[in-house]
Amino acid sequence: MKVSEIGEFGLIDVLAQIVTQGRTGHPVLLGVGDDAAAWRMGDSILLATTDTMVQGVHFTAESSWRELGWKSLAINLSDIAAMGGVPQYALVSLCLPGDTEVDDVVQLYLGMMEVADLFQVAVVGGNVSRAPVVMITMAVVGVAQAEGVLTRSAAAPGDLIAVTGYLGSSAAGLRMLTYHLKLAQETMVFLRRAHLQPMPRIVEGQLLVKQGVRAAIDVSDGLIADLGHVCKASEAGAVVRAEQVPIHPTARAAFPEESLGFALAGGEDYELLFTASQETIDRVRSSVDALGHGTDCPVTVIGEVTREMGLIVVDKNGRPFGGSGEGWDHFRKGG
Amino acid sequence: MKVSEIGEFGLIDVLAQIVTQGRTGHPVLLGVGDDAAAWRMGDSILLATTDTMVQGVHFTAESSWRELGWKSLAINLSDIAAMGGVPQYALVSLCLPGDTEVDDVVQLYLGMMEVADLFQVAVVGGNVSRAPVVMITMAVVGVAQAEGVLTRSAAAPGDLIAVTGYLGSSAAGLRMLTYHLKLAQETMVFLRRAHLQPMPRIVEGQLLVKQGVRAAIDVSDGLIADLGHVCKASEAGAVVRAEQVPIHPTARAAFPEESLGFALAGGEDYELLFTASQETIDRVRSSVDALGHGTDCPVTVIGEVTREMGLIVVDKNGRPFGGSGEGWDHFRKGG
Repeated sequence: MKVSEIGEFGLIDVLAQIVTQGRTGHPVLLGVGDDAAAWRMGDSILLATTDTMVQGVHFTAESSWRELGWKSLAINLSDIAAMGGVPQYALVSLCLPGDTEVDDVVQLYLGMMEVADLFQVAVVGGNVSRAPVVMITMAVVGVAQAEGVLTRSAAAPGDLIAVTGYLGSSAAGLRMLTYHLKLAQETMVFLRRAHLQPMPRIVEGQLLVKQGVRAAIDVSDGLIADLGHVCKASEAGAVVRAEQVPIHPTARAAFPEESLGFALAGGEDYELLFTASQETIDRVRSSVDALGHGTDCPVTVIGEVTREMGLIVVDKNGRPFGGSGEGWDHFRKGG
Repeated sequence: MKVSEIGEFGLIDVLAQIVTQGRTGHPVLLGVGDDAAAWRMGDSILLATTDTMVQGVHFTAESSWRELGWKSLAINLSDIAAMGGVPQYALVSLCLPGDTEVDDVVQLYLGMMEVADLFQVAVVGGNVSRAPVVMITMAVVGVAQAEGVLTRSAAAPGDLIAVTGYLGSSAAGLRMLTYHLKLAQETMVFLRRAHLQPMPRIVEGQLLVKQGVRAAIDVSDGLIADLGHVCKASEAGAVVRAEQVPIHPTARAAFPEESLGFALAGGEDYELLFTASQETIDRVRSSVDALGHGTDCPVTVIGEVTREMGLIVVDKNGRPFGGSGEGWDHFRKGG
């Protein structure tokens, strides 16, 4: 069977079985299958994650090198955010064609350092190699907060499902860039930024843990796909109310027909999806509001966790909504 | 300027300057420019490293998937060995064309787990992505021993230079595989293994630290290039006596003309090169011998560190030896 037939998540399941057998004797708390790995070291819990951006798959010539540097680190930090952790150190493995301009690589690093500086992450090492296409792999190491970590497996029936920020803006930006659409200047700036310079929800993730949230994931594959990961890990189901899914007015105005689809299945928003009681979510909302980010980061309830397995999106009349529910799979789509 | 013009090490110098500025407030002991990064955490020193293998650059169809898995992890562990550390956790970022066979990826993981099990390393996570060529990036996190870490910058004039094991066997194996040479069965097995299943000198690296060695590097780019890294970091020079460089009898017999060149500039042997006093080296030799690996891992003095900058290879009459002295640079060679 080909990797494209089994799909990204099918492949991960197969590989997870192989590596889990070699784990004896290590204080591993979370391995393959959560946003980041977690293990105990002394009094601390260490977190580590890795993610890659491949030219032609995750980005095209539409991205500037500086944006690419930003996004490469931001998507890794987002995995630490999804654990409610504190990112500390980053390693870069850079694969480049020999005819890449040195100045472009410098821009890539400057973009990366912008995010690193925002979140006090030290880039401590890495590796450069020749390759036929540009590939940027980063690994980030951090620590969990004393209160614990957010996991995909802690959702419980009866929990409400909430998200930070808005969904679908990144996919709208990708659509705009891919088709070279000409929109209002402000719209173009907003959508481009949403797709190429996502803001990892580090501070918000830490607030979730402090307010007692235990289940979370970052929205990288798409709302439906990522909520599906949570349901699978938590052995539960979910109902999502489509009309409650937060879509930014700018994205909705630019793509009135497509924006809900972008929000449900587009991915790469790097917002946090979490489950908790109404009371906990209210506390989270207050503490996120207190950060003073204004309207940038609403906290919105979009559905609830159910005992019945399966994931249903319903419209405002409570009727199942016709969506594919597949989200982004690196091998199945566009492969 | 193109990356191919400035070269791998020139590029690293440029990038190191950018990332070093963002380091304030972190207890970083070693960043870009050593085999692994090192930072303080509580009472421990953490070590982290990353390395990539790219299809068509670092390996070809001559390697089995299992060997590829072995080597991908082994070369990362070798960086931890060069610090005298204890590897603990590994993350894998795998880029694959969609038409890759799932069974091949399973073989890759099985090869990786063979090395992981040998050195009690837990593979705790990773990421799979679609890409036009196979690329395997690993990041390994470990801890330093209480006695400290080995660094590239601790060599001092008057130190002798020594290496573990034999040099040039890997390059001989690469030559054999590249040109599909038919040699005696035993020779082919030995050389293939030397190139595709290097044994990281984890235990030996730890012994170096315990015996008081402070300066080391692993031989990945080639003896001359790697010794050059040590000299640059230590602001010293070196003399290497060509006839003292340990070459395995099998490699010498198979390539009588080329084996010295392989040993000096071939790279990918993943042996440890270190500098210390004669007395310390004698203690290292005794403790390595006591491991009972037999003739597999001699400890050989090959030259000395000098106050005069520059790196000279001399023949048995003390005359400068005509070699390029460049070693392996990913961008300059074959780029």
